[in-house]
Amino acid sequence: MRVVDIIRKKRDGGELSKAEIEFMVAGYTRDEIPDYQVSSWLMALLVKGMSGAELAALTEAMLNSGEVLDLSEIPGRKVDKHSTGGVGDKTSLVLAPVAAAGGLKVPMISGRGLGHTGGTLDKLESIPGFNVNLSLDEFRSMLHECGCSLIGQTKEIAPADKKLYALRDVTGTVESPNLICASIMSKKLAEGIDALVLDVKTGSGAFMKKEEDAVHLAKLMVETGERMGKRTLALITDMDQPLGNCVGNALEVIECVQVLKGGGPEDLRQLCLELCGWMFYLGERTATVEEGRALATRIIEDGSGLEKFKEIVRLQGGDPAAVDDVSRLPQAQHTMELRSKHTGFVAAIACEQVGTATVVLGGGRERKEDDVDPAVGLVLHKKVGDAVAEGESLATIHYNSDARLDEAIALLEGAYRITNTARYMPQPLVRRVIAGATSAAAAGENSEGTTRAETSWPY
Amino acid sequence: MRVVDIIRKKRDGGELSKAEIEFMVAGYTRDEIPDYQVSSWLMALLVKGMSGAELAALTEAMLNSGEVLDLSEIPGRKVDKHSTGGVGDKTSLVLAPVAAAGGLKVPMISGRGLGHTGGTLDKLESIPGFNVNLSLDEFRSMLHECGCSLIGQTKEIAPADKKLYALRDVTGTVESPNLICASIMSKKLAEGIDALVLDVKTGSGAFMKKEEDAVHLAKLMVETGERMGKRTLALITDMDQPLGNCVGNALEVIECVQVLKGGGPEDLRQLCLELCGWMFYLGERTATVEEGRALATRIIEDGSGLEKFKEIVRLQGGDPAAVDDVSRLPQAQHTMELRSKHTGFVAAIACEQVGTATVVLGGGRERKEDDVDPAVGLVLHKKVGDAVAEGESLATIHYNSDARLDEAIALLEGAYRITNTARYMPQPLVRRVIAGATSAAAAGENSEGTTRAETSWPY
Repeated sequence: MRVVDIIRKKRDGGELSKAEIEFMVAGYTRDEIPDYQVSSWLMALLVKGMSGAELAALTEAMLNSGEVLDLSEIPGRKVDKHSTGGVGDKTSLVLAPVAAAGGLKVPMISGRGLGHTGGTLDKLESIPGFNVNLSLDEFRSMLHECGCSLIGQTKEIAPADKKLYALRDVTGTVESPNLICASIMSKKLAEGIDALVLDVKTGSGAFMKKEEDAVHLAKLMVETGERMGKRTLALITDMDQPLGNCVGNALEVIECVQVLKGGGPEDLRQLCLELCGWMFYLGERTATVEEGRALATRIIEDGSGLEKFKEIVRLQGGDPAAVDDVSRLPQAQHTMELRSKHTGFVAAIACEQVGTATVVLGGGRERKEDDVDPAVGLVLHKKVGDAVAEGESLATIHYNSDARLDEAIALLEGAYRITNTARYMPQPLVRRVIAGATSAAAAGENSEGTTRAETSWPY
Repeated sequence: MRVVDIIRKKRDGGELSKAEIEFMVAGYTRDEIPDYQVSSWLMALLVKGMSGAELAALTEAMLNSGEVLDLSEIPGRKVDKHSTGGVGDKTSLVLAPVAAAGGLKVPMISGRGLGHTGGTLDKLESIPGFNVNLSLDEFRSMLHECGCSLIGQTKEIAPADKKLYALRDVTGTVESPNLICASIMSKKLAEGIDALVLDVKTGSGAFMKKEEDAVHLAKLMVETGERMGKRTLALITDMDQPLGNCVGNALEVIECVQVLKGGGPEDLRQLCLELCGWMFYLGERTATVEEGRALATRIIEDGSGLEKFKEIVRLQGGDPAAVDDVSRLPQAQHTMELRSKHTGFVAAIACEQVGTATVVLGGGRERKEDDVDPAVGLVLHKKVGDAVAEGESLATIHYNSDARLDEAIALLEGAYRITNTARYMPQPLVRRVIAGATSAAAAGENSEGTTRAETSWPY
């Protein structure tokens, strides 16, 4: 097998064999194939597309480039959730304890924020003492003991993905649904899960701005997961405005605690129940997704979700008292109100700009190596469809330095579009359900007006 | 300007600006942009294609990466010929002296053989003492003195092409008509020429097997040359069987000397006259291409072409006596006849296999670093359409070692297809003329049945 022949085959629209794909991925991981051949191959894959079989082979080769967790000794179904990322997207902090309290095992390996989107690890680290850098052995034993652990990517898991992503980042080969799918699924499937719920965001604050692109990616991931024998389902959810009201690490933890206490913003609470309902269903804890949602609701109402969250915090070295008394979380030194200059209705919130405003305050990263300030961020008081009077506060800005405050204010102010002629309604929270073969029936039975079943991927 | 943005723009089908293309080529030439970004960019260029303006910008950026010869002090029109390469393709050794004897200046920078195709430099070096490694100053003064010089690529000419070609070779990005065009034209235009005749080969022994691909490449090159203000014209010529009868370096020099003496195989002689006729016409030595052919014919008949060839050999350190007495050229120790096993007619000669048989004998290169044996090769006695009797010699094999002789015999034997039912006619030698705006009228007037004018490139 010659690298250049494999590149040419793909370039000319051929279908690569499993052996050819494994040869490329394994050779690259072992530093035997140089960057310049892999980047040309990635560009050919991006432009020429991939068959379902090629995508499964790529995912499997990346998965097998490192350690694949075997959690079979731990009793119970292992179910995870993955989100493609957005602004104010904090459901993991609610889902993980609720699903674990409901009897699932949740082996959650998460990422950090980059650009306008936040990351679960940064949010968790705003809890004093919380350690996301457990070894895989510690991860495994915590999963056994408490049913859940939340850690960062380790070097043992899918090293090919780490190397390939770094190359894609500088060679214009990030924006490929197939490569994105292989990157996400190789890491998730290495967790040793039985089932996976995907939250694929679409809208102005999402990576996939267009719903059709989100649906395409979701179908690729569901099909790939099912090919690997995992029950997989995706929700296409709205990211045309931030999820919940808080954007910023400690502020988002506070909002999650509110949800776990039975309160919090309605959109965040509903999406958590929806995602958790599917986790319970795919993990065979409940016979239907409706029962799954009901179970999640009870776990929040009886406080066992909140208790599980405190247990996770304690086991990972964090201060559980900060969950009961959120004033122990990092707090910004200053706050200011962004007041509306108009009376009317919020027609739209440019979601990416809200995320960027948070980055500018120091709450996110412009480059991978940037530090994050856990305390800063935004609390939005007005969302799409809300009435607003001139002088009323649109949002509270939490900040520690005024170095780039004006820039953040300008971004946030520019993000709000207020009209006085019509009342805009927000998009439905869950736009579609993309089910694989193993859950198509359940998706079809789903009677919520905001969701509709999608026929499974045609190939 | 950011490299990754330029890659993404092309990947998504955008048209790159002249400044963006120059940024990439200049940055790569100066080692400021790494291989892995350029290879992904090249793959995007290959798959997404290029506009005429992009191709001209790429050619110009590559051309300007090194020295561009200014020959304006040397009187007379500077005209060159370039061939895309084939088997037995030796016209340069006839054209250069005939065109120079006819009053043109011929600044010819040539290449070496690789794979099944031969190269002008290897053929010239079979003449004892012949030095193809002149400096650009020596090249210039010889051009002034004798009207012609034949040298190899120097490091001063289009260094971007050398670096890009080495990268393309290992990243599956060779087979792009646009990139091939930019590679050829950047080097040729750096020679300081006024006009260029391109011999674009098509058929089983050519790089472009399909005529439509050869026509496409020819149109790109003609359009690019004309955009740069050079009179440019391409002939699409047959490479479905070797040109002439000899394949192998010294053997091909002998055949060229035969043509210069008024003899030689008819196909080789005709193609030389045709190409030279166009060189005289584009170089404004004659008012029509017919007059150009007539001038070339006279120069051969009166012996001034042969004298010019001996002058070139002498000025480049070679032994001119070897031109008069070809037994002074390297001769193989052994010869053997390949005899036909059938009676019938030659229906086809698999041209690439004939070239490969010569390589196997040591007369060409499998890898760039291989040495070449100047003496070995083949003399074909039967070509397409010829009648052949069982036991009659198809070809004489000239060899020095029998290490891989059986392999060469098998290749050559397998290359001949002999039928007894029908007489096959060879393809016309010149299949088409692709003229630019500056010579379209002349191409249209061309009354030969084997050629027809092509409308110039539509964009």
